[in-house]
Amino acid sequence: MPTLYHAPNSRSETIVSLIDAMGIRDKIDIVEVTIPRQDGTGGPDPKNPHPEGKVPYLVNGDDHIRERGAIITYLTELFPESGLGREVGDPKRGEYLSWLFYYQGVLEPVILLDYLKIDDPVLNATFRDYDTVLKRLEEGLANGPFLLGDDFSAADVLCVSPFLFFGEGLRRSPVVEEWIKRCAAKLGAA
Amino acid sequence: MPTLYHAPNSRSETIVSLIDAMGIRDKIDIVEVTIPRQDGTGGPDPKNPHPEGKVPYLVNGDDHIRERGAIITYLTELFPESGLGREVGDPKRGEYLSWLFYYQGVLEPVILLDYLKIDDPVLNATFRDYDTVLKRLEEGLANGPFLLGDDFSAADVLCVSPFLFFGEGLRRSPVVEEWIKRCAAKLGAA
Ligand SMILES: N[C@@H](CCC(=O)N[C@@H](CS)C(=O)NCC(=O)O)C(=O)O
Ligand SMILES: N[C@@H](CCC(=O)N[C@@H](CS)C(=O)NCC(=O)O)C(=O)O
Repeated sequence: MPTLYHAPNSRSETIVSLIDAMGIRDKIDIVEVTIPRQDGTGGPDPKNPHPEGKVPYLVNGDDHIRERGAIITYLTELFPESGLGREVGDPKRGEYLSWLFYYQGVLEPVILLDYLKIDDPVLNATFRDYDTVLKRLEEGLANGPFLLGDDFSAADVLCVSPFLFFGEGLRRSPVVEEWIKRCAAKLGAA
Repeated sequence: MPTLYHAPNSRSETIVSLIDAMGIRDKIDIVEVTIPRQDGTGGPDPKNPHPEGKVPYLVNGDDHIRERGAIITYLTELFPESGLGREVGDPKRGEYLSWLFYYQGVLEPVILLDYLKIDDPVLNATFRDYDTVLKRLEEGLANGPFLLGDDFSAADVLCVSPFLFFGEGLRRSPVVEEWIKRCAAKLGAA
């Protein structure tokens, strides 16, 4: 049985809510670990096998999976019957993968850089900026209530995660706000 | 036939060298487009359908794929016979996906932040730093000449790409240097 290393109130919550949305809680062993917290409490947990003591981390036999995008791709492949992924061969497989990698490679860095008010032409050429991210989300939502169209997917789960985590702290447009609410309802996080 | 939008001397070179290493040049339509260059030349190309005018961008029928990690995952799934990916069900599928997402979500941001000498505790907690990236690569290389062990894979193609692109400009350790050379030989970029 795959084991997920998880710390409450951290990025690994995204994976726990995905697991619940997929209906596979009985198929994953969730192990709670500590991590260093911003307020100075906590600390790396010796029972967490992640090379940097981070969460989430998924272990399945000899295979080890880090980064939320990778864990999401992997879990939705392992349990295709959940319907939250788009399988290899699906006409939206590429779009699905694109949202997951776009989240990891662009959306998250941009949210952090915007929050830290770091503005640099090289970073901007590479990642663009927060308004561009909102524009991309709106484009994704132009064809349906969720990023891939009619159906809620794991791409929504990952991309909405910072909005649910940081709440009002993250600027959003009305279209994005409505999507956040729809996702929160799906995730039981409303 | 999938179409790749490509600009020479840019991140899309990674995908072109992957295509060559996979032996699928005759199965992909490569369309050259312009992009704005750092020296002020070039500019966005109206024939590039990427929403931000960037490269690489892959279009396959109605499916659109952005971000190198996504394009690599997608192409190695579409042409599994190349042997450069690790298929769903492979015992290293998770490791394979992890390198691709780690590249996009951590390795590339860290290289940029290190180059720009941007040092911030929040960024450091999220991404760690350049030395940590080198350590992760060395760990990956502890079990064989390539990141996934004995065999060269598309994970190497993506992770080695900045080292080949920026050359000596990017600090490396002796173990990483030897890996870069092995990859360059595989890619005919030696
Ligand atoms: N890019 C990783 C980031 C993981 C991450 O930074 N997790 C934080 C929790 S929110 C952590 O484990 N921090 C503990 C530490 O930095 O030692 C992902 O998306 O999975
Ligand atoms: N995260 C993207 C980055 C793509 C990217 O920034 N490409 C550059 C070329 S190296 C580009 O198209 N620049 C043109 C522009 O910024 O308008 C990826 O890895 O595919």
